[in-house]
Amino acid sequence: MEQHTADANHVASNTRWTLEAATIVDLAVGSAVLGTGGGGDPHIGALMALDAVALHCPATVIPASDLADDAVVAIVNMSGAPTVMTEKIPNGGEIERVLRCVAEFAGRPVDAIISVEIGGMNSVIPVVAAVRNGLPLVDADGMGRAFPEFQITAFNAGGVHFGPRFVTDEKGNVLRIDAIDAEWIERINRRALIAMGGSVITALGLTGADVKRTAIHGTISLAVAIGAALRQARSGSSGWLDQLRQVVDALPLFTGKVASVDRRTEGGWTRGYAIVAGLASDHERSLRIDFQNEHLLARHYIRGVLDRILATTPDLIVVLDSETGTPITTEGLHYGQRVTVLGLPSPSIWRTPRGLELAGPKHFGFKLDYVPLEERVAAFAISTGDTGVTR
Amino acid sequence: MEQHTADANHVASNTRWTLEAATIVDLAVGSAVLGTGGGGDPHIGALMALDAVALHCPATVIPASDLADDAVVAIVNMSGAPTVMTEKIPNGGEIERVLRCVAEFAGRPVDAIISVEIGGMNSVIPVVAAVRNGLPLVDADGMGRAFPEFQITAFNAGGVHFGPRFVTDEKGNVLRIDAIDAEWIERINRRALIAMGGSVITALGLTGADVKRTAIHGTISLAVAIGAALRQARSGSSGWLDQLRQVVDALPLFTGKVASVDRRTEGGWTRGYAIVAGLASDHERSLRIDFQNEHLLARHYIRGVLDRILATTPDLIVVLDSETGTPITTEGLHYGQRVTVLGLPSPSIWRTPRGLELAGPKHFGFKLDYVPLEERVAAFAISTGDTGVTR
Repeated sequence: MEQHTADANHVASNTRWTLEAATIVDLAVGSAVLGTGGGGDPHIGALMALDAVALHCPATVIPASDLADDAVVAIVNMSGAPTVMTEKIPNGGEIERVLRCVAEFAGRPVDAIISVEIGGMNSVIPVVAAVRNGLPLVDADGMGRAFPEFQITAFNAGGVHFGPRFVTDEKGNVLRIDAIDAEWIERINRRALIAMGGSVITALGLTGADVKRTAIHGTISLAVAIGAALRQARSGSSGWLDQLRQVVDALPLFTGKVASVDRRTEGGWTRGYAIVAGLASDHERSLRIDFQNEHLLARHYIRGVLDRILATTPDLIVVLDSETGTPITTEGLHYGQRVTVLGLPSPSIWRTPRGLELAGPKHFGFKLDYVPLEERVAAFAISTGDTGVTR
Repeated sequence: MEQHTADANHVASNTRWTLEAATIVDLAVGSAVLGTGGGGDPHIGALMALDAVALHCPATVIPASDLADDAVVAIVNMSGAPTVMTEKIPNGGEIERVLRCVAEFAGRPVDAIISVEIGGMNSVIPVVAAVRNGLPLVDADGMGRAFPEFQITAFNAGGVHFGPRFVTDEKGNVLRIDAIDAEWIERINRRALIAMGGSVITALGLTGADVKRTAIHGTISLAVAIGAALRQARSGSSGWLDQLRQVVDALPLFTGKVASVDRRTEGGWTRGYAIVAGLASDHERSLRIDFQNEHLLARHYIRGVLDRILATTPDLIVVLDSETGTPITTEGLHYGQRVTVLGLPSPSIWRTPRGLELAGPKHFGFKLDYVPLEERVAAFAISTGDTGVTR
């Protein structure tokens, strides 16, 4: 494997470009793919972003390399359980409130906006923040996918010393968290947001130097390219999977029908698992996908007995509608859906020892060693005599 | 009834006086009486205060009337479940950390310290804050007793507009809560403290004018007088109850043996109830006391059938060791203790419509109208032909 999904330099990211209204929908769809089921409903986020673009200028997307070392770059994101986030839409004032806090703390205006993750709401909330406040959006993010916790960011893996995180809700409450490390920012934020109604808007300032050194670059461009590929498939001659594979190294894991979903909102997260049953001649095969906001683990079963693990975090497990290639979020999964499950290799930072400590299976409570997706799928292909895709 | 417990002007509170080491123990014991079972173990707090006094000067206690209108008065308190607080002693740096935050926000040094409540730890933590930082302690507090929530303060009943609350833990995490009202300060604080280990140190700045107008005055003096009365009883000829009644209007409710305690730590509170069974000829009578950090409701039963309510919040329900008069906290209650249960009329602010809205039985989920303790006890004395004390 030469290409890694989110280090994707095959998507141009060294120039400034404009995120027009048409591109926002591609960004939302592509982010839902890289979001591996998490990050909340991208549809609502896209509507918000479209609304903002209609009222203001389109967003300018800049490469991180354009940032001055002392630039103030605000991470703006929505935090909470996706099941709540989709029903609790920010009214707008929240973003400006936390951006003012970041600027006041920095003692100078915010220079640019960056996404904490690529996934659902949290790819488009920063677009709204950028457009409404006339700020550029950095073509990068902190995860190269979505993860449920703030400490699982390339910023943290890269040793950034974090200043205060500002948190607000639609009622006007504002919280400033000065924590000793990223884990404590996450822990305190997670509890506080439950008190604040289950989802909040947060902002935290980074320096341009920190962003250039630690962020995962080119990921806004990549998400747009993914969204565009899936859109083009609808009007083109080739299928959506072929189109998608021209942009990312998507490895087919399983195709079938959602047989059951066990999902609960607890501790500020959406947790549970889904069972995808094989169809026709594959009816004895099934796939179990465990999630905590994001999909974390995909296990293959034969006649209800565990056969093997097909993919684990930090690699991306993506569930899409088999017919249309539309990505499905963890809270959108329901009985009867015909789905195709893909694996995407994670950004390389997550495959380092520090990355696996933060984002590997053990962090999420699975007593498993990480094996790269490509190796798992290659072994599966040999044993089944095919690519792993259900025939 | 002429005197109301915590409006007690019969205890001198119009002059400055010094809180010496010997007096600190009286303060701790008296606070445990007014704390109605809540506020945490006063013993640990007293040890901390004694330690602080040994290292520094004794605390100067000043009447609120001595405060300038624009004085910065910091409420300093420990917040959390008493069951946790007694095992998680602040290491000292916490108090200074939050006081620095209050001073920075005010743009000038803190002038004085005030207690949010009279009860256990939260009467002595402010002494530690005062002594360590060379600041006077105001002879007043926000409750005139202990209550489990910040919105149940005379400050809030009096319409004070609150600035930020600063919250810290022993690890060094700092939270600043800018909430829209006292209820939201409480709600966010309560969730966040669970993340921060179950108990935290907090501070919030008031103006001298707000304190003079809204605080319940003379309550440090009152607590010391109660503690002194119980101490003197040990070496005197009269019993502790007689001594106590020379200082406060304590109405005996019940005497017996603790038969069972149902207590759990949940949502950052210690919740549950205790059953006190009558002794000898009273063995068919029992008292059930419900608590949420503090005792909230005392119900009298005959042969297991509810007979009547003897006392409800906001009046004070106090459980003491029958032999020694030592107050017992909700987390100190256990099977077999011989106890005397007293009722004390609440400070008058809590008997107003606004006071009852904040602190009455309905606020705590009991579908009961408030009837003043004195009326309930008088009716009980008529029906039983005695004072209500088990013979």
